[in-house]
Amino acid sequence: MGSASRKTFLPLDPVSFTNESKAVIDFIADYYENIEKYPVQSSVEPGYLSARFPDSVPYCPEPLEDILKDVNDCIIPGLTHWQSPNFFAYFQANASTAGFLGEMLCSGFNVVGFNWISSPAATELESIVLDWMGKLLKLPSSFLFAGTGGGVLHGSTCEAAVCVLAAARDKALKELGGWEHITKLVVYASDQTHFTFQKAAKLVGIPPSNFRLIETSFSTEFSMSPEMVRSAIEDDIKSGLVPLFLCATMGTTPTGAVDPIAELGKVTTEFKLWLHIDAAYAGSACICPELRHYLDGVELANSISMNPHKWFLTNMDCCCLWIKEPNLLTDSLTSDPEILRNKASKSRAVVDYKDWQIALSRRFRALKLWIVIRRHGLANLMYHIRSHIEMAKRFEAFVRKDERFELVVPRKFALVCFRLKPEAAAAEEEGGELNRKLVEAINSSGRALVSHAVAGGIYVIRCAIGTTLTQQHHVDALWKLIQEKAQALLINN
Amino acid sequence: MGSASRKTFLPLDPVSFTNESKAVIDFIADYYENIEKYPVQSSVEPGYLSARFPDSVPYCPEPLEDILKDVNDCIIPGLTHWQSPNFFAYFQANASTAGFLGEMLCSGFNVVGFNWISSPAATELESIVLDWMGKLLKLPSSFLFAGTGGGVLHGSTCEAAVCVLAAARDKALKELGGWEHITKLVVYASDQTHFTFQKAAKLVGIPPSNFRLIETSFSTEFSMSPEMVRSAIEDDIKSGLVPLFLCATMGTTPTGAVDPIAELGKVTTEFKLWLHIDAAYAGSACICPELRHYLDGVELANSISMNPHKWFLTNMDCCCLWIKEPNLLTDSLTSDPEILRNKASKSRAVVDYKDWQIALSRRFRALKLWIVIRRHGLANLMYHIRSHIEMAKRFEAFVRKDERFELVVPRKFALVCFRLKPEAAAAEEEGGELNRKLVEAINSSGRALVSHAVAGGIYVIRCAIGTTLTQQHHVDALWKLIQEKAQALLINN
Repeated sequence: MGSASRKTFLPLDPVSFTNESKAVIDFIADYYENIEKYPVQSSVEPGYLSARFPDSVPYCPEPLEDILKDVNDCIIPGLTHWQSPNFFAYFQANASTAGFLGEMLCSGFNVVGFNWISSPAATELESIVLDWMGKLLKLPSSFLFAGTGGGVLHGSTCEAAVCVLAAARDKALKELGGWEHITKLVVYASDQTHFTFQKAAKLVGIPPSNFRLIETSFSTEFSMSPEMVRSAIEDDIKSGLVPLFLCATMGTTPTGAVDPIAELGKVTTEFKLWLHIDAAYAGSACICPELRHYLDGVELANSISMNPHKWFLTNMDCCCLWIKEPNLLTDSLTSDPEILRNKASKSRAVVDYKDWQIALSRRFRALKLWIVIRRHGLANLMYHIRSHIEMAKRFEAFVRKDERFELVVPRKFALVCFRLKPEAAAAEEEGGELNRKLVEAINSSGRALVSHAVAGGIYVIRCAIGTTLTQQHHVDALWKLIQEKAQALLINN
Repeated sequence: MGSASRKTFLPLDPVSFTNESKAVIDFIADYYENIEKYPVQSSVEPGYLSARFPDSVPYCPEPLEDILKDVNDCIIPGLTHWQSPNFFAYFQANASTAGFLGEMLCSGFNVVGFNWISSPAATELESIVLDWMGKLLKLPSSFLFAGTGGGVLHGSTCEAAVCVLAAARDKALKELGGWEHITKLVVYASDQTHFTFQKAAKLVGIPPSNFRLIETSFSTEFSMSPEMVRSAIEDDIKSGLVPLFLCATMGTTPTGAVDPIAELGKVTTEFKLWLHIDAAYAGSACICPELRHYLDGVELANSISMNPHKWFLTNMDCCCLWIKEPNLLTDSLTSDPEILRNKASKSRAVVDYKDWQIALSRRFRALKLWIVIRRHGLANLMYHIRSHIEMAKRFEAFVRKDERFELVVPRKFALVCFRLKPEAAAAEEEGGELNRKLVEAINSSGRALVSHAVAGGIYVIRCAIGTTLTQQHHVDALWKLIQEKAQALLINN
């Protein structure tokens, strides 16, 4: 049995829990203090870590100091610093003290709230917080528990997509009279829709050949055309297929485009498709009245999802999904094994969230969104969004003023899509190549991180402003860096 | 813009981060100190929380003290205390200081490691830790990166099941020549297999009528019969169906049964089925040489999963999945959007874990498993498992000594399945009823929490020994409680 005993082996002793946890708090605070000193994107080579760590497991316990030293010496150099104020890539992942506190409580209680009885507070707080968040976004009451709908926290948009696609699929298969019709179901999205929906549709068994990517173009700022959707639906019906599901996006990943929800909703209503709205990134902005209009038409949707873990100060992971007819979700996802049967579930007076998601086990994620909302209040949450939008406007103005650059699409939120003008290079192709080199030069400097997209064949540089720590001077420094790297490239070109 | 400004609104300021986080550490330590004072299972009524919280969101920030007061007054009474040493229900969810520290670092760094470049350390540490864990379980090198396979961390067994089922499905559909064959695919499990596999099979589009539940019985201790599997496969082939996938379990949820992996592997090899091993609970026990034999035959499997978040001191959530042919997983799950293209991925010298799982976004979960292993060392981890098994043996002896009770199946790990003998009641049906009442009496006392199962028509009381804080005296107290409640019931019967 080794030399340990229950008296000496105390893996959750409150005293060492406190001491060791506080040491790690200091370590993380120190990381935040110094975060600007690190190159934003890690410059390690593939395989760097295996060379530093033994390939076998220690037999004896190691002291925390040794582990933290390794985190400092080996892990941090391999991080791309998403919390750096100079991180402008992808979409941000907001950490905050409030989100962190919620995550600590979640991990500390470590309850598994698969059904109501397994921890009533976990279920009830989640329902309350989803209604809170839905009200912040001014969702119709048809999406709220206070109305006729309801919401759930998932880990990611893809999980949410899998679940609503399965719900839509199972409803359709029931109506069509058998599982063999699965090969007739068709899902629609645009070529700007997050690829996660294509993956999710395939995961739930929709043939990949039945996924329609509606083409977008520069002329509509890369938003989805309701006419083209209608036409695609009609074609599919003529071919004997069954249009099932449309995903509209509010704030696409490549360029921040907004699909015309109200008009798309008319089409999906007419043809009885399930309309899902993916507001993963820009949904957070709708807490500001002046930005809420982008969600107009949401009442025509069947479901909507957004990620507080992006722009809403909630540490990873946290995705809100609201659905108008929760019974369609639970019809598809419910399991009722004897081992989990209990009076509360039988009474049907409670929500059992295992039937609203893929997995059985689930963390108490609601705590962090609840603390984020209370600790900041709507006032500061709106300030958070607006200050990033102000910074994005400022950056946009920088781009406009420099005649070597151009904005590719109008900015709606805090994502600015720009490029060196093709004229600055010999031809369009070289323009793409030059912009690619510019991104490479910015990122390899370690002083900032941006990312890229291709929309309508155009290579676009994306500057997503929105980390928790980003301030105006970081945006100013980014612009200087871009100008400096562009200058060097244009001289050498 | 309200009265806030970037100077006063600092949601991730290191000083307040430190102070507030340490206050929450003290709060959690206090919770652990007092955890035995709470009734293990919450006794709140459905809807208790909505009555206590406002239904609208605060406009102004609230102080942390108010929030923690609400956690104390409103949330804790609604928790079922999974970390209580008197929690013997379901399977345990081990928290530990080490797991908590890892979770804090994960949440503090808050990186999103979807591909290698988005945070190389997150990917590389995960690959290293999966190999470590695989070596601890003495998996063949065909499951390790050091060999020809590889591993990934998911949040739950169901996610792992969805992914391996999709991989098996897509391989089969390719071989069969088209998506329309999806309705021919058949999945096999036993009536003791975790219901999550049935849910996962339906999620990936396998018709529910093509899910075969092989019946188990008391005579084989509820393990799956290879002969019955073979016979079911042969029947399906005769009917023109295509046997696809078999899930074998090492340590079932209802009774801790172990399916005969080696013999089942022979059948799946012969008929070319994908064999998955679900070792969610009992996999952890295989780090002890004397218990490893239950995994014999694993070399015949295509994939295996187990959950360190159950019995391996790793806070929620953490599920290890190993796969022999990772290319089958990535063939099914890969997406290659322009926005994520980068040199490292193109070089194919790196792992991009987004292609090994459902979601795009992913947390740096490897940190916690890595710290759990290093901070405890194999010696203490084995002690952890063995001490629970010793306690289970002790509990088993209590049951054996009391002639009113009987063990329903032999104990293999730290789950004891027992009941009041049917003779103690008038008839078998009443025996079920009496045992149901006994569970109710134990749980409503608040002094301990057990759960139940039904196997082979028999109502079984499950005592799963394994929380981090459980010590021998808790097990002794549980037995006294059971005797006391049984006595009261038998007198009143």
